[in-house]
Amino acid sequence: MEVGVYLLHRLEELGVRSFFGVPGDFNLGFLDLIDDYTGIDWVGNCNELNAAYAADGYARIKTGSVGAVLTTYGVGELSAINGIAGAYAEIVPVVHVAGFPSLKEQEDKPLLHHTLGNGRYNVYAQAAELFAYSHTILNDPQTAAAEIDRVLSDCILQSRPVYIALPTDVAYIKISHERLSVPLPRLPAQNHSLGEAVVIEEILKLVEQAQGDVVVLVDVGAVRYNAVEEVKAFVETAGFAVYASPMGKSVISEAYERYGGLYTGATTRPEIKAKIEGAKLLISIGALKSDLNTGNFTTRLDVARTVELHHASSKIKFSEYPGIGMKYLLPKLTSALTSASLKSLTLSIPVPKWTHPLPQESDEIISQAWLWARIGQFLQPKDVVIAETGTSAFGVLDIPFPDGAVFISQILWGSIGWTVGSTLGAAMAAREKRLGRTILFIGDGSIQLTVQELSTMLREGLKPIVFVLNNSGYTIERAIRGEHRKYNDVVNWGWIHLMKALGDVDGTRTRSYAVNTKVEIDALLSDGAFSSADVMQVVEIGMKMLDAPYALKVGTAVGSQW
Amino acid sequence: MEVGVYLLHRLEELGVRSFFGVPGDFNLGFLDLIDDYTGIDWVGNCNELNAAYAADGYARIKTGSVGAVLTTYGVGELSAINGIAGAYAEIVPVVHVAGFPSLKEQEDKPLLHHTLGNGRYNVYAQAAELFAYSHTILNDPQTAAAEIDRVLSDCILQSRPVYIALPTDVAYIKISHERLSVPLPRLPAQNHSLGEAVVIEEILKLVEQAQGDVVVLVDVGAVRYNAVEEVKAFVETAGFAVYASPMGKSVISEAYERYGGLYTGATTRPEIKAKIEGAKLLISIGALKSDLNTGNFTTRLDVARTVELHHASSKIKFSEYPGIGMKYLLPKLTSALTSASLKSLTLSIPVPKWTHPLPQESDEIISQAWLWARIGQFLQPKDVVIAETGTSAFGVLDIPFPDGAVFISQILWGSIGWTVGSTLGAAMAAREKRLGRTILFIGDGSIQLTVQELSTMLREGLKPIVFVLNNSGYTIERAIRGEHRKYNDVVNWGWIHLMKALGDVDGTRTRSYAVNTKVEIDALLSDGAFSSADVMQVVEIGMKMLDAPYALKVGTAVGSQW
Repeated sequence: MEVGVYLLHRLEELGVRSFFGVPGDFNLGFLDLIDDYTGIDWVGNCNELNAAYAADGYARIKTGSVGAVLTTYGVGELSAINGIAGAYAEIVPVVHVAGFPSLKEQEDKPLLHHTLGNGRYNVYAQAAELFAYSHTILNDPQTAAAEIDRVLSDCILQSRPVYIALPTDVAYIKISHERLSVPLPRLPAQNHSLGEAVVIEEILKLVEQAQGDVVVLVDVGAVRYNAVEEVKAFVETAGFAVYASPMGKSVISEAYERYGGLYTGATTRPEIKAKIEGAKLLISIGALKSDLNTGNFTTRLDVARTVELHHASSKIKFSEYPGIGMKYLLPKLTSALTSASLKSLTLSIPVPKWTHPLPQESDEIISQAWLWARIGQFLQPKDVVIAETGTSAFGVLDIPFPDGAVFISQILWGSIGWTVGSTLGAAMAAREKRLGRTILFIGDGSIQLTVQELSTMLREGLKPIVFVLNNSGYTIERAIRGEHRKYNDVVNWGWIHLMKALGDVDGTRTRSYAVNTKVEIDALLSDGAFSSADVMQVVEIGMKMLDAPYALKVGTAVGSQW
Repeated sequence: MEVGVYLLHRLEELGVRSFFGVPGDFNLGFLDLIDDYTGIDWVGNCNELNAAYAADGYARIKTGSVGAVLTTYGVGELSAINGIAGAYAEIVPVVHVAGFPSLKEQEDKPLLHHTLGNGRYNVYAQAAELFAYSHTILNDPQTAAAEIDRVLSDCILQSRPVYIALPTDVAYIKISHERLSVPLPRLPAQNHSLGEAVVIEEILKLVEQAQGDVVVLVDVGAVRYNAVEEVKAFVETAGFAVYASPMGKSVISEAYERYGGLYTGATTRPEIKAKIEGAKLLISIGALKSDLNTGNFTTRLDVARTVELHHASSKIKFSEYPGIGMKYLLPKLTSALTSASLKSLTLSIPVPKWTHPLPQESDEIISQAWLWARIGQFLQPKDVVIAETGTSAFGVLDIPFPDGAVFISQILWGSIGWTVGSTLGAAMAAREKRLGRTILFIGDGSIQLTVQELSTMLREGLKPIVFVLNNSGYTIERAIRGEHRKYNDVVNWGWIHLMKALGDVDGTRTRSYAVNTKVEIDALLSDGAFSSADVMQVVEIGMKMLDAPYALKVGTAVGSQW
């Protein structure tokens, strides 16, 4: 079996059905292998950054699987590197395969195109290492299978990107497929049993003392390290109140009756804030305490009342327990928390229903405050909602989601334009998983970075709804600085013509709309054909330049950086 | 004077009038300084890769100056890195300024957005180092001016990219402007005088022995190291026959009577090939011997008859002379070669006029062979012609250029999509330098990578002619592998609608055309309004999927990589 085919088998085993990327002469040979491989489809992208974003979006929706992106040597892989770094930051398992010169070329070092002209053939791999959990250059066919297994195991177990440089000739060298008979590990190493017992005992003691006033705060680690089922069983069994961080939004269904909404520090609605910060015990799961995930560092959780469960460690008040991870810990805690008396105590603590009613506004302007509430009515169970860094991400955080609706955004990395590529990947994954509609919210500034990938969605027969919030430039940045500076202006595009340009030449395969008043958007959102998402749709929403969602307006959500 | 303003003064001194980039919250403060600075205009781009490409294109046209690009921390700078690496490979002086966390943030290391979440604040600078000749993080206001001077001097003297990380607060710290009274060095270090004398003596001896049969082969180093005037004086004084490599195309006017065309090894037209390879003495200036600059390593120059002059070294037959660079060497050689008898000898060796007549074809299909010949008739003196890696770059190489027309392409780096960004930069530079029209040739696959930057050209009032060769995908790659594989297909866009989508909503500021026959394109190219380039124009040229220019067809131009 060719090394390239071995790699494809392993990717398929991990759940990969779509392989994103851009062809280049250092990966064309491997592309033939992909094209001939039945279990995985090639999804050619318009450029490599978008391809990396797509693999990232795909991996986020296919929890427990990975995303895969193929680029060519130098020019391709470097274009993707921001997307890979973003996956690293946001704990997303992406396998980056880059075409690499043949063994003979590596030895002779001819002055090839796509090199720097100085013989430093490994320089891109050096750059890749900085943003990969593991990496390998598959120069030795003898160890290629083991190396593939090593980095892919790291990818799925550590939920971080890995890098595989695949020399053009090695892709075709035949190796044994014997290793394939042993599946890759999918579960982390077991916890140290004595340490784990201590942690469980301590937590049970704290739960008992809390007399039911226990708040569980769910964050991104829970979903990225594939512990959502364990978290659900834990909170449902004990009846604890559940809240989420922005990056943890939708990990636990927002329709769950004991779910109380988002905790974003100082910008949290006061009644929610008091419930969380005043709880007798707070169990934080998978926390990532970045600025925009903590209301710009305004979360105030008393360490003396807090338990933190992480992927590979736990913390009880001031004590850290390395090596005691949540995946195995949570089920044991759950088993220990089945007492009816505990549950009646926890259920006696009410969790107010988190709602976001439509504000009464007398004018026809589509305000941020009104829009997000109205969008909340539009969402359906199992929708996949993607929100761009900017007013969109802050706005979507205000919406309570229906059951099973999924939220993805780049709260930590915050690379504008990311959502267009990731919408492609997310929509592919949503189709594979038979989820609902894929809905993107993005501003007129951000979409310009990566707009071409809408074309790939069209080709793949995907039917996302793309809401373009046209507020005349980078409103998120105006909120920070340069409110009227020209550097925050962008060209006003003809959004209504966009899909014609990007491939729907005769206008039969997509629908585009422009709405500028509450009446117009209300009519559109109420329209059954629109709502059914039977074709790809683009909606330009005309909005005021300086209007912003609640969290941005109160001003502590984003820190000024200078 | 603020550190940021000091930097702007130095950039202006180096000839920068346009600063490309994308705003982000780590560079907004510096952007205010740019906005308020009268000598340099901010040109906001749609994304950072395009911005880097624009700075590269700008620097190529403004020989002796530099390009400048501003990005934000992490997400922005990493998106630009492929463009910077390309500038490194192709010897283009680009200053990359990246926003950086404040001094206090660097000390406290909060978990900021745009970080990897692991406190490695310097990791992007580590990546940048790999592709920069020099780099600095301006953390110390005491040395900031000296550091700026150091890296900018390297940029212009070494003609390679440099990287400046500018902390948000340091941009505003006041420093002395005293250093500005001493201009930055613009000339390389002097040659060692005794060594130089030896080299001159040896070369003069070889010239004498050659009895006029001397061929000068001009390559990219001549223009990038700012020695074009010295090369011109040298060849004109002595009357030597002049040829160019692909990367050296147009460095010497292709209308010059002693210019004989391009040397591309085995794919060179036989009559030219014989003249060059058979010359008694070959003087190679600024050579860069990459695969696609040498007909895939098929150039056959007898070392025993060759002199190589480089930026910082010379080579005579088998002897190398480090530290003896062409900038000072050439004028001294020129002074020594003024004898009338030498000139009459050299002029007795005829240089056949390089022409590319229109082939007679009986059908209406726009073939590659016919197209480039017809384009040759369309070009005017001082046009700036940009050709994308692919059939465009190979095709344009077949066209003899009129006087003063300039060719730019990415023959070594070969990052597809590069030309769109670089056309923006080149057109800005061409307007500053009052050159002619800016004309881009690109394929329907390549333009999809970076298409949004056409929007920026529109906003800036530039009037490029953009020829989109619609040959249904990546034809250059089909020539290598996967002729009918689906990974070489791309979506067929509605090119005629493109500029409406990208900002010319009412269609009054641009013109778009689609031509599919020889008659149609001939009529368009003959039309005075079109030819006058009074507005931005986009022309879709319908072509056959597998048709390719001569060099690609003969098959040695591109090596198979696997």
